[in-house]
Amino acid sequence: MCRWLAYSGTPIRLEELLYKPRYSLIDQSMHSRQGVETTNGDGFGVGWYPVDGPAEPALFRGVGPAWSDANLREIARSTVSPLFLAHIRASTGTAVQQTNCHPFRHENWLWLHNGSIREFAKLKRDLVLAVDPRLYASLAGSTDSEVMFHLALTFGLRDRPVAAVERMAGLVEAVGRAHNVDNPLQMTVATTDGDRVWAFRYSSEGHSRSLYYSTETTALQRLYPDNARLQQLSEESRLVVSEPLADLEGAWQPVPESSYGVIQKGADELGRFEPAAP
Amino acid sequence: MCRWLAYSGTPIRLEELLYKPRYSLIDQSMHSRQGVETTNGDGFGVGWYPVDGPAEPALFRGVGPAWSDANLREIARSTVSPLFLAHIRASTGTAVQQTNCHPFRHENWLWLHNGSIREFAKLKRDLVLAVDPRLYASLAGSTDSEVMFHLALTFGLRDRPVAAVERMAGLVEAVGRAHNVDNPLQMTVATTDGDRVWAFRYSSEGHSRSLYYSTETTALQRLYPDNARLQQLSEESRLVVSEPLADLEGAWQPVPESSYGVIQKGADELGRFEPAAP
Amino acid sequence: MCRWLAYSGTPIRLEELLYKPRYSLIDQSMHSRQGVETTNGDGFGVGWYPVDGPAEPALFRGVGPAWSDANLREIARSTVSPLFLAHIRASTGTAVQQTNCHPFRHENWLWLHNGSIREFAKLKRDLVLAVDPRLYASLAGSTDSEVMFHLALTFGLRDRPVAAVERMAGLVEAVGRAHNVDNPLQMTVATTDGDRVWAFRYSSEGHSRSLYYSTETTALQRLYPDNARLQQLSEESRLVVSEPLADLEGAWQPVPESSYGVIQKGADELGRFEPAAP
Amino acid sequence: MCRWLAYSGTPIRLEELLYKPRYSLIDQSMHSRQGVETTNGDGFGVGWYPVDGPAEPALFRGVGPAWSDANLREIARSTVSPLFLAHIRASTGTAVQQTNCHPFRHENWLWLHNGSIREFAKLKRDLVLAVDPRLYASLAGSTDSEVMFHLALTFGLRDRPVAAVERMAGLVEAVGRAHNVDNPLQMTVATTDGDRVWAFRYSSEGHSRSLYYSTETTALQRLYPDNARLQQLSEESRLVVSEPLADLEGAWQPVPESSYGVIQKGADELGRFEPAAP
Repeated sequence: MCRWLAYSGTPIRLEELLYKPRYSLIDQSMHSRQGVETTNGDGFGVGWYPVDGPAEPALFRGVGPAWSDANLREIARSTVSPLFLAHIRASTGTAVQQTNCHPFRHENWLWLHNGSIREFAKLKRDLVLAVDPRLYASLAGSTDSEVMFHLALTFGLRDRPVAAVERMAGLVEAVGRAHNVDNPLQMTVATTDGDRVWAFRYSSEGHSRSLYYSTETTALQRLYPDNARLQQLSEESRLVVSEPLADLEGAWQPVPESSYGVIQKGADELGRFEPAAP
Repeated sequence: MCRWLAYSGTPIRLEELLYKPRYSLIDQSMHSRQGVETTNGDGFGVGWYPVDGPAEPALFRGVGPAWSDANLREIARSTVSPLFLAHIRASTGTAVQQTNCHPFRHENWLWLHNGSIREFAKLKRDLVLAVDPRLYASLAGSTDSEVMFHLALTFGLRDRPVAAVERMAGLVEAVGRAHNVDNPLQMTVATTDGDRVWAFRYSSEGHSRSLYYSTETTALQRLYPDNARLQQLSEESRLVVSEPLADLEGAWQPVPESSYGVIQKGADELGRFEPAAP
Repeated sequence: MCRWLAYSGTPIRLEELLYKPRYSLIDQSMHSRQGVETTNGDGFGVGWYPVDGPAEPALFRGVGPAWSDANLREIARSTVSPLFLAHIRASTGTAVQQTNCHPFRHENWLWLHNGSIREFAKLKRDLVLAVDPRLYASLAGSTDSEVMFHLALTFGLRDRPVAAVERMAGLVEAVGRAHNVDNPLQMTVATTDGDRVWAFRYSSEGHSRSLYYSTETTALQRLYPDNARLQQLSEESRLVVSEPLADLEGAWQPVPESSYGVIQKGADELGRFEPAAP
Repeated sequence: MCRWLAYSGTPIRLEELLYKPRYSLIDQSMHSRQGVETTNGDGFGVGWYPVDGPAEPALFRGVGPAWSDANLREIARSTVSPLFLAHIRASTGTAVQQTNCHPFRHENWLWLHNGSIREFAKLKRDLVLAVDPRLYASLAGSTDSEVMFHLALTFGLRDRPVAAVERMAGLVEAVGRAHNVDNPLQMTVATTDGDRVWAFRYSSEGHSRSLYYSTETTALQRLYPDNARLQQLSEESRLVVSEPLADLEGAWQPVPESSYGVIQKGADELGRFEPAAP
């Protein structure tokens, strides 16, 4: 499986979250505590929206382990962003190549995933056939995660994100049933249009991979009392992570089973996630 | 486009053909003389059948330029084989990744290709849908070449190779017509089951990429009079190449437009290639 | 050999110089017109000083060809800088690895080089012994270029840059003489402290690799009349390049043999370069 | 640190030891049980002597994790050898690059190392200065391990291997003392000329990394009763490993502290290792 992180809020240097925390994402690439695999060394990726930059986010993705990537360290040190997603990968069988690294991008959208579609090789063709033919050619890699993204785009991710992801999940489960694959879907997902971030936690069997969010900025500030930059974070700043970045009591709230959250200006949202059968 | 080489005959060390000749394949990776692109630096691959080894060939494929790959040089120096294919790639747009490097393998078969399917992004979905669903999951990369291979497998490559490749070509042309793509297919292809080698030269427009074969072993022996190993080649030894390995007068015969050849024990074959409409 | 570019002036997006010009640096990686080698596919690097960032520049260096590097394209599209150096490498024998990619960095300094020290394997030990022992451990790669940088640092690059580079050149020539290597030094070099840029053109034989500078901003603006960003460049903006980025008459001035230039606030400098014997 | 394996005996396919055993070396790359680091994902290498091949061994070294390297799997499946060394790397700070991957080669010799020279950056210059100037230029990477190899070569590895390694260790300790570095040397080493294999276990502090050897072929045969190939191993076949490949009671003997072993035709040797002060 994989580990990931989504940040939205006051522009910060990427390294503040990727490298500096105890149990940082880069540390998790070698020593994950809550993942199915302790090692996530099959590639990595970061997608960020530039401050005052173009609407389309930038991507930096590599096929080696994050922990030893000199360029990732440079990018993290020199890049400031108000919204970014980061991912470290543990392959469940598909090739270690850049086109299989998260986040995936489509126009101004980013998408990343931890989990898998069970027996994906068996279900893949039916799932790919359901992708809008106009989107078909932009499938560049071979992962279940990228197909899930393109299905969500097909089902209207840009207009009604939660409903689109629910239709995607419903289709995966229907195709699974048709092929006698039990409990086909296991996922935590983050997706963003550069403005809001949607996070999903769901699995067909009701026993999903871990997912946490930082309830309030003050929690983060308690985490790093000596970090001047973090002390300047706005109230709107939020983190969603597949496992906590540090052990601080009370700083992290688990996302409930079968639910989704939206990080946005004003009050955030938390709702129940229900796959919609096709 | 790309450059490639196929060898069948007396077991020889790979480096004898990959590195030692003037205008060797590795030299062509930087300075091709007859290719559409002079540089073929977007990955490479070698597939070889071991002497007394398992029926399934071994693959070594890399994503960097062949000219600077230290491992390729080691493999070429230490490996002896009676039948191997080698390829250097110039991407026509798809990602530079190992799963896009030739040769492609399916069980005991290898396949490599120089050329392209024009406007492949537009035709890809229809072509992939025609692949036998049982073969679908083994599509690992994103190239036209790998889809062509899987179509040929779908159409009976293992039983009637020439007819299968003709059906593949016919389908590509039919799908091209349906999408208003003129002259969709441009190819030289080599494929082998470890026993015989089939080579194809064809393009919809009747103006195909170059392809040559060494007519007789004595030609090769004239090429390298001081190479003791080559002097020991059997009469059956043959090379097919996308461009000559050296300038020796009379050593290379062009494969005619729209034709195929078979390298095999006993008399080789040369025939006319005619795409079979679906 | 290699190709390179140095820019100083109004902050611009890296892609404006790396990708957009006809004969851009990335284009030169496959089709150099004035280089000793037409292909520069043995790695690349960019070093840039962030706008309002830390004094230490950021580096992005890769071992594959620049032309196919997806991350380089992303960085170039999303990064704005008032001062950056870029380099594409054609190895003269040393390994293709990140620690051999230019620019090299030491604290706030960057350094890049086109050319070579002739018979470097023979001269290397004596040259490395002359490096300040406190700098010795920061030699991370195996190139002549990195040793030249460390020698210049040893000889006072930070305080008197031109004199330090002249002492470096003088040492290389003295060590060459001691080992009977004729004309040991061939170089164009750019180095910067983040404020000024020094460019050098020199060779022992008086026949140096090409080097050009853009005489005035208006030249650049004539180059790209439709590029709104370039129209906003300040008068101080300057480019130094190993070969012109486009064919525009009058836009580029060759740097004379055996000379150096300084790009700085106020009047730029051009002076004679004379190696200082040790 | 790292994990490694040395095999000498009846020619076998590399995969029999690299992939097939429970706790195989490739498995250890992700889940080492006795290493200082559980993950050894910073590159790998295999060096093998071909059956009936040239005296110089072949090398295959990669910079990614061994567990996901498709080419390593191919090489291991297709290569048979009577003597090979394999290594998986966990960097102690030096760059992840091919020239830092073990085994290192000099003519017909191979060398690999687990451990480190403490504060190598501080001691490196003095150690490198002690390398025979004629060997200096063949230092291609930046590791302590490669310097140790070149020091051993300088001190007569080819003629009196144990004495040469003892002089190397003595020099490292003397240079350590001169720089106030306590207990500078930690090592298990394997080296071979293609005929015999020498294995060393030593540390200045008398608390060395683990090392084991397979006492007799029958032990291996008990390990894999169903493996027909292993049942055919000669009595001379031996393995030395940094940690056992499987849990079989009685199959593995620890190499004692401060000792060396020689695997050779006839009786093997085991002796005390004593660094020789310079």
